[in-house]
Amino acid sequence: MSKKKPVILVTNDDGITAKGIAALVSVAKRFGEVVVVAPDSPQSGMGHAITIGQPLRLKKSTIFKGIQAYECSGTPVDCVKLAVDKVIGKKPDLCLSGVNHGSNSSINIIYSGTMSAAMEAAIEGIPAVGFSFLDYGYDADFTLSKKVIDQVLKNMFSGKLPMQALYNVNIPKVSTQEYQGLKVCRQANAKWKENFVERKDPMGHKYYWLTGEFKNNDRKKDTDEYALKNNFASVVPVQFDLTHYGLLNQIEL
Amino acid sequence: MSKKKPVILVTNDDGITAKGIAALVSVAKRFGEVVVVAPDSPQSGMGHAITIGQPLRLKKSTIFKGIQAYECSGTPVDCVKLAVDKVIGKKPDLCLSGVNHGSNSSINIIYSGTMSAAMEAAIEGIPAVGFSFLDYGYDADFTLSKKVIDQVLKNMFSGKLPMQALYNVNIPKVSTQEYQGLKVCRQANAKWKENFVERKDPMGHKYYWLTGEFKNNDRKKDTDEYALKNNFASVVPVQFDLTHYGLLNQIEL
Repeated sequence: MSKKKPVILVTNDDGITAKGIAALVSVAKRFGEVVVVAPDSPQSGMGHAITIGQPLRLKKSTIFKGIQAYECSGTPVDCVKLAVDKVIGKKPDLCLSGVNHGSNSSINIIYSGTMSAAMEAAIEGIPAVGFSFLDYGYDADFTLSKKVIDQVLKNMFSGKLPMQALYNVNIPKVSTQEYQGLKVCRQANAKWKENFVERKDPMGHKYYWLTGEFKNNDRKKDTDEYALKNNFASVVPVQFDLTHYGLLNQIEL
Repeated sequence: MSKKKPVILVTNDDGITAKGIAALVSVAKRFGEVVVVAPDSPQSGMGHAITIGQPLRLKKSTIFKGIQAYECSGTPVDCVKLAVDKVIGKKPDLCLSGVNHGSNSSINIIYSGTMSAAMEAAIEGIPAVGFSFLDYGYDADFTLSKKVIDQVLKNMFSGKLPMQALYNVNIPKVSTQEYQGLKVCRQANAKWKENFVERKDPMGHKYYWLTGEFKNNDRKKDTDEYALKNNFASVVPVQFDLTHYGLLNQIEL
């Protein structure tokens, strides 16, 4: 680390007014110069969506006192791209995304706008972390989240957690007394079983609400689900080479 | 394979009226009973987005003669979920997505609605393939694509390509004479360098168009980019465990 303060880009998928991003900014600013570029409206479930076919808007925000902040009309991934190219004008030293209101553990990473923003940064070679808290509540208590963010960043800046990486951090919904610390682990092999609720509108036409049931069939103890169930914050190092090498080596055409 | 015709779910991200999905349906129906559930409008760049906070609509379509088809108001991933739960009412034997108008090779897989639909099926345990053609044209010629789809499906049904898997197939923009065949390979380590175009609206407010430059720094010969450059169709077996095991094994907290 040079003596110059590191530039830390902060974004999220719940939108710039969410309580979770305020918690993240409040800790991040102790570690560097924070720049916020976050969606102007909630973007949950956006996955790695980007905006094609329509332009993006960027508006200065005064929501965080003393911090350069912008709200963007696009997705979380758009926010990172715009931040690098047009707001900061270069790669930040670190990108933090979240704190998401709700879990992004195990297979949820695939659907997560929070993690996609962090992944976009990582693809560009920027160290990145996505933080998610296992409480969907709009008014959730982010006290433990702040402690976890502080631990993760201290571990990254000290080199205990390699800096040049992408991490998916999930925070259990427990008190700071019950909290057991960070646990580095792998993504559990879990999935959602969808279950649409069918309704009829006043005109008699059917419509469907997506609901689902989370199923974790992975009983091993080295997973994020296991860590979270045992009051640890899970830290999964993440990659974006989706090649299935095990299968690749088996196939002969 | 039982004697009963396999049920093949077909979807895409360019929308049900795209030429690419018509090409895919025309080949798929030789291999089984096809059911189409595809977006009612283009969904390019939607990644693994799902629709949260608003309901979905499903409408019967007569666009494919003799084939059960529905258009859906949601994303490609929504289409797969709705198809399994509400249209077919069980898991299909195979899910095919595409043919996408444009490449989904290397890092493009991350942004791709086409591949996310296929991945959603795979997460649910359904064998799945996403097909993409390296021609963005609305009126692209899908003759070679049809040949490649036929080859891939024959290889899957014969077991040469393991059935219980997820594949990302990209098809080069060459003539059937120049085409060299299928090549099983890994995802190239390439990325996009974004380059937003800044404009002003008639009210004097800035807006931004996302544009970018594709950069492949992966010079090895076992990649999808190499295969495509050499007139092969690339077949990348894909997984959705994003854990970076190499890094996981290095970290000690």
